[in-house]
Amino acid sequence: GHAFAQDSFELDPAQAATAEALVAEALESDLAWSIVESLTTEVGPRMPGSEAEVRARAWGEALGQSLSFDRVTIEPFTMPFWDRGELEISITSPYTQALHGSALGGSGASPRSGPVESDVVYFRDINALTAVADGSLEGKIVFVDGDAMVATQTGAGYGPANNRRRIGWQHAERAGADAIVVRSVGSDFHRNPHTGMISSMDGEWANIPVIAISNPDADHLRRLHHTGAPLAMQIRATAGWHGDVTSGNVVLDIVGSELPDEIVLIGGHLDSWDLGTGAIDDGAGIAITVAAAELIARLPERPRRTIRVVMFGAEEVGLLGARAYAQQHAEEVGNHVLATESDFGAGRIWQLVSNVDAAANPAIDAVGQIIAPLGILRGGSNVPGGGPDIIPLAMAGVPTVRLNQDGMDYFDLHHTPDDTLDKIDPEALAQNVAAYAALVYLAANMDVEFRTPAEEAAAEE
Amino acid sequence: GHAFAQDSFELDPAQAATAEALVAEALESDLAWSIVESLTTEVGPRMPGSEAEVRARAWGEALGQSLSFDRVTIEPFTMPFWDRGELEISITSPYTQALHGSALGGSGASPRSGPVESDVVYFRDINALTAVADGSLEGKIVFVDGDAMVATQTGAGYGPANNRRRIGWQHAERAGADAIVVRSVGSDFHRNPHTGMISSMDGEWANIPVIAISNPDADHLRRLHHTGAPLAMQIRATAGWHGDVTSGNVVLDIVGSELPDEIVLIGGHLDSWDLGTGAIDDGAGIAITVAAAELIARLPERPRRTIRVVMFGAEEVGLLGARAYAQQHAEEVGNHVLATESDFGAGRIWQLVSNVDAAANPAIDAVGQIIAPLGILRGGSNVPGGGPDIIPLAMAGVPTVRLNQDGMDYFDLHHTPDDTLDKIDPEALAQNVAAYAALVYLAANMDVEFRTPAEEAAAEE
Ligand SMILES: [Zn+2]
Ligand SMILES: [Zn+2]
Ligand SMILES: [Zn+2]
Ligand SMILES: [Zn+2]
Repeated sequence: GHAFAQDSFELDPAQAATAEALVAEALESDLAWSIVESLTTEVGPRMPGSEAEVRARAWGEALGQSLSFDRVTIEPFTMPFWDRGELEISITSPYTQALHGSALGGSGASPRSGPVESDVVYFRDINALTAVADGSLEGKIVFVDGDAMVATQTGAGYGPANNRRRIGWQHAERAGADAIVVRSVGSDFHRNPHTGMISSMDGEWANIPVIAISNPDADHLRRLHHTGAPLAMQIRATAGWHGDVTSGNVVLDIVGSELPDEIVLIGGHLDSWDLGTGAIDDGAGIAITVAAAELIARLPERPRRTIRVVMFGAEEVGLLGARAYAQQHAEEVGNHVLATESDFGAGRIWQLVSNVDAAANPAIDAVGQIIAPLGILRGGSNVPGGGPDIIPLAMAGVPTVRLNQDGMDYFDLHHTPDDTLDKIDPEALAQNVAAYAALVYLAANMDVEFRTPAEEAAAEE
Repeated sequence: GHAFAQDSFELDPAQAATAEALVAEALESDLAWSIVESLTTEVGPRMPGSEAEVRARAWGEALGQSLSFDRVTIEPFTMPFWDRGELEISITSPYTQALHGSALGGSGASPRSGPVESDVVYFRDINALTAVADGSLEGKIVFVDGDAMVATQTGAGYGPANNRRRIGWQHAERAGADAIVVRSVGSDFHRNPHTGMISSMDGEWANIPVIAISNPDADHLRRLHHTGAPLAMQIRATAGWHGDVTSGNVVLDIVGSELPDEIVLIGGHLDSWDLGTGAIDDGAGIAITVAAAELIARLPERPRRTIRVVMFGAEEVGLLGARAYAQQHAEEVGNHVLATESDFGAGRIWQLVSNVDAAANPAIDAVGQIIAPLGILRGGSNVPGGGPDIIPLAMAGVPTVRLNQDGMDYFDLHHTPDDTLDKIDPEALAQNVAAYAALVYLAANMDVEFRTPAEEAAAEE
């Protein structure tokens, strides 16, 4: 016999065969491509809280109704609306040259009396800026350099590079600067700024323009700085907050046949930044998860558990849809048996990680065996996460898995004008659908508890 | 004995050795890199006829004086000034979305009374547009699609794709359209418009906005068109002509020791479009040819003939500097023994072609042998050309050669915001300098007539 019998799990042969059939069907299907093509073309960019996001929800509702879902619901929530406004940014000394920049989410505006025009103080990196004394940059524009983000499969370069975007403004304001300009958090060498959110400080947002410029523009400023020439900039920005608006999550359910209250939750976020058309971030995630669920819904029988696809609203400005979902579903959060999100582009999946009860790991391993022919490795079994919009659920104890995508070029495109449909490889997209379909089908059908039983969890505390 | 003795040419062994030493030195030198870094950083973009082009000439003059040239001259000429002005272009139906566009050189403006806002008429390609009846597009905006340019080593895709940029406006105006928008002539998939000149018609330029949009934007419009949704656009453009200004060529001479009146002419163009910083077009050509000449000027002895580096002005708007040079030097055009230009980016040279007197072909072949170790093939010996700015000289009978660069990615970057220093590979740049140094040194020293003797040329006519 096997010494670790408790560590093995036998998939039901019929379920395994169905999962394999779903993989084969998904690889031949262009459903996900059609969905992301429709979203990016017919709705286009869809800023959190905007009129375009309203149209996106209508699109999502109509999509769910046109497919095989049993229930389609829009769950509204209220949020503050930030608008990018207009931006003009240029070097004015040693000569005039326009820069390619974008206001960062949460940026303030330049004074209505006219653009900011100031000498530039150069900081080699964010650490140099955080060391400045209070009030020491009055009347200056801060430029925080750094380096182009390191491209990796896992996206490991994002966190370190992101500091200048997130907290740079807090130190610039503290020091009295008129505006702050940072090197974009991106791994590409194109004239594209990468937008994204700044971090609020005690609930407060920036009162000054907070601008990201492209890597080539940042390289240019670095070289100009090294010539010793006086460097000055002019910035006109009209970014700012505009009161409360309604956003919402779109919830698509395939109701379980035996355990309709038990929910396997997947999804992506419906909103996008406005510079591109939100193809890889996160039209792809919407398309992958809807298509995977649809393939399951077309099977002759409903799965045992409910499969729920959530199109989260307003992810980009702070997981607002995800927080609203967790709050609005607080009473049934214990019914969410497993959750995961696709929100890392449209690259091929290369790894399956999980964070479920130890007793359920063999079942996840068995799922891993089914999707291994797709080129997917079984990774760690104690990896918290599941995706940005899953964080509030995971914090409330919902077990998670994640299908890690290859992110080598994700941060070339992320939050830039280049996030457009042509960047998606249809074959990689189909591989994603295949993996999700198999995983979600099995999770919704297998006789396994992914959640640590309440008494054990209590005992561990 | 050799059956074709007249077809062989023995290089002077000392000259061959010097040429090989120049190759070795050039490969180790970062002079060209320093030059293009300085031009793109310290001068930046330099539109033909602009204040920035004045600064570029001052930069070129100072560079020539700081190096080993014997004579540095600015040769002014007068030209009409076209300014890109401002552009706002967006889809207004079926929803609002900004497009990434650029006015094309020679474009007109939208009316001062307000932006053009009209329904869009879609044309699959330029041939569809040229077939329209006079007056049939009153009150419309024309969109001319086409396909992304085919990338090739030789740039062969440019001509066919260029028609929509060059002559589209002539047919749009003839048909009464309010504006014309064309798919950029570029092989990339980034949100970068490719600018460039339109063709004048009987000396007249466009009275309507003539706009290029990026390939992803054109793909987007094509998909929207296929949905059947009504497509409308709004365009505000302030492009236009602003009277005569002074431009100029900067001429750097290494005066020949024995035949100072015989000129081997090389060069590039000093002006650039304003979207990028003119690194590959044509800061690289300036850097390659100045560096190659400088290495020759640092030799213990001056070459037999004069080596002249011309930094042509105002190339982008119609070879204005080249025409002025040919006109201003019309009386000594017969003294120009050989001419060539570097103006196809900064890729490695892979081929040497020529158009000289047949009797001189073996000498060019011998030069080819010297640069063959750089990975350069000997190509055709009856290939007219020598580079855009050499056309007026070639038409006046000046023999030409050309060192063909690998253009596989040239039209990803050409005339876009992405034409920046980071796109240049220093090793490829040094390979260019090595080939030019050897070629120009040998051409300036070898006892060969490249020009077909006058009596023979007359007999051939
Ligand atoms: Zn995202
Ligand atoms: Zn995002
Ligand atoms: Zn050029
Ligand atoms: Zn050009």
